[in-house]
Amino acid sequence: MVVLAGGVGAAKLLTGLVRAHPPHDLLAVVNTADDTVLHGLHVSPDLDTVVYTLAGAVNPDTGWGLAGETWQAMNALDRYGGVTWFRLGDRDLATHMYRTHRLGQGADLAAVTAEIAAAWGLKLAVLPVTNDRIETKVTTADEGEIGFQDYFVRRRHDVAASAVRVAGSARARPSPGLVEALDNARLIIIAPSNPILSIGPVLEVPGVRPAVAARRDAVVAVSPIVGGAALKGPAGRLMRELGHECSVVGVARLYREVAATLVIDEADAHLADSVEAVGISCVVAPTIMDGAESATAVARVVLGGLAAGGSA
Amino acid sequence: MVVLAGGVGAAKLLTGLVRAHPPHDLLAVVNTADDTVLHGLHVSPDLDTVVYTLAGAVNPDTGWGLAGETWQAMNALDRYGGVTWFRLGDRDLATHMYRTHRLGQGADLAAVTAEIAAAWGLKLAVLPVTNDRIETKVTTADEGEIGFQDYFVRRRHDVAASAVRVAGSARARPSPGLVEALDNARLIIIAPSNPILSIGPVLEVPGVRPAVAARRDAVVAVSPIVGGAALKGPAGRLMRELGHECSVVGVARLYREVAATLVIDEADAHLADSVEAVGISCVVAPTIMDGAESATAVARVVLGGLAAGGSA
Repeated sequence: MVVLAGGVGAAKLLTGLVRAHPPHDLLAVVNTADDTVLHGLHVSPDLDTVVYTLAGAVNPDTGWGLAGETWQAMNALDRYGGVTWFRLGDRDLATHMYRTHRLGQGADLAAVTAEIAAAWGLKLAVLPVTNDRIETKVTTADEGEIGFQDYFVRRRHDVAASAVRVAGSARARPSPGLVEALDNARLIIIAPSNPILSIGPVLEVPGVRPAVAARRDAVVAVSPIVGGAALKGPAGRLMRELGHECSVVGVARLYREVAATLVIDEADAHLADSVEAVGISCVVAPTIMDGAESATAVARVVLGGLAAGGSA
Repeated sequence: MVVLAGGVGAAKLLTGLVRAHPPHDLLAVVNTADDTVLHGLHVSPDLDTVVYTLAGAVNPDTGWGLAGETWQAMNALDRYGGVTWFRLGDRDLATHMYRTHRLGQGADLAAVTAEIAAAWGLKLAVLPVTNDRIETKVTTADEGEIGFQDYFVRRRHDVAASAVRVAGSARARPSPGLVEALDNARLIIIAPSNPILSIGPVLEVPGVRPAVAARRDAVVAVSPIVGGAALKGPAGRLMRELGHECSVVGVARLYREVAATLVIDEADAHLADSVEAVGISCVVAPTIMDGAESATAVARVVLGGLAAGGSA
């Protein structure tokens, strides 16, 4: 079973999936297009959010970073006028230091990620979508094209965007085993992550979108848009700015070529027919995940998504 | 006034010099051959020891690192089985992060060092001997040739060495302004640092040794060997292993081509004639620096070294 994942929303669904399904049967395929090099350190925000969350170590207030974190390094960096808008906690730094060290030794990101996941005791497999460097670039009105973290963190995604592209994606190769896993998965889940900034780059790695589309009947997506807005982050604003409808119908249109089923929240039940009119089966269920129980409930809906799909 | 400097011993003398002489008239030229890249971060141990010590921020127990440091990142790195034998405190990490960031932006090490020194409020100039990468390599009996930090920290310099070389030195260029500073200095001080591991690499950067030798009459060295042993570190053992006498006479032989005067400790007063027989003037004085006062006293001896040199 394969889960295409971004950060916080995907991590929540995964905490439910490992409760509802044997973890060793799960493969989380994680976006790396928001990876960045800061202070010489390779930072993989979505991978770390998934790992920290599944390890029960994530900061529950933010959904990213580690609980009980300290900030000595960041505070000391202030003395130099260093880059501190991207907050890296002291313990979190160790993850980036380890990753950077191992990549420098020639290990690939998939191997390093497996080591990090194992160190946190995870039983599911966590795989970056590619070992190659891909980077989301956002074209803004006032600064032109900027890096993803510049947009997302430094500008707090509070700036108009007119285009998104994934630099490096044309020559990126899917991580070893990924296409085979998609070919053979009983179920492929598209997590409720940003369709443009998180799932988009995953699908854009050459070979991935066709592999998912070829399995369309086995693909269930969970809408990250609820009640016409993103639960978190810039998905809603960005969908509008890039000409998509910010609704479950807009999500359905983005996914209709790769997914046969879309799970939408009860708040959007009145749009179920419009979703199906796009050509995608619709499952209506509670999708808000505010803890392990609700995440497990959503996971169970997703796991039964294909069977229920036709009857929505 | 130029000071050729390694780490702890040099930093102590510099704290005395800035008390005994206008700091803006001092240029500390610091060894970078023990720089290393750890976890992707550019670490410059001697530069940092000099800066932290002069800033009054150094850990007084170790002579390196920051006082009151925390170790969250190192402790977290243990989870991954990461490289933790080289201890980097959380606040110290910020220095390496800033340096790595700026070098990545294309700044040279001299510029970054000046920024770091200014951030700590230093009034003297601190200059890496070269902006180019040089790295001391030590040939050991059991592991062959290893990097300096492997030898110094990981092996705690508790291993027989048969050779030392400075990789990269043949093509290194002295930092901009360094040769001119040596040409014009009223006094050039060789700090009581390891003659082989700290001062050796400084002199080995092409252009430096000839520039210092040309000013031999203006050069005063302070012996790091007192009573036949190094005050700190592996200087004594290494001198013996590489065929040098571990005494002020051995130091005199190492420096006679570049220095006209050697300051030796009172404990070695009986060797003053032997030092002079090597062809270098000898000044006998207390040289143990265990605080600001004694460091200032040593600094005053050094500043008066040339005048007193003939009368030892």
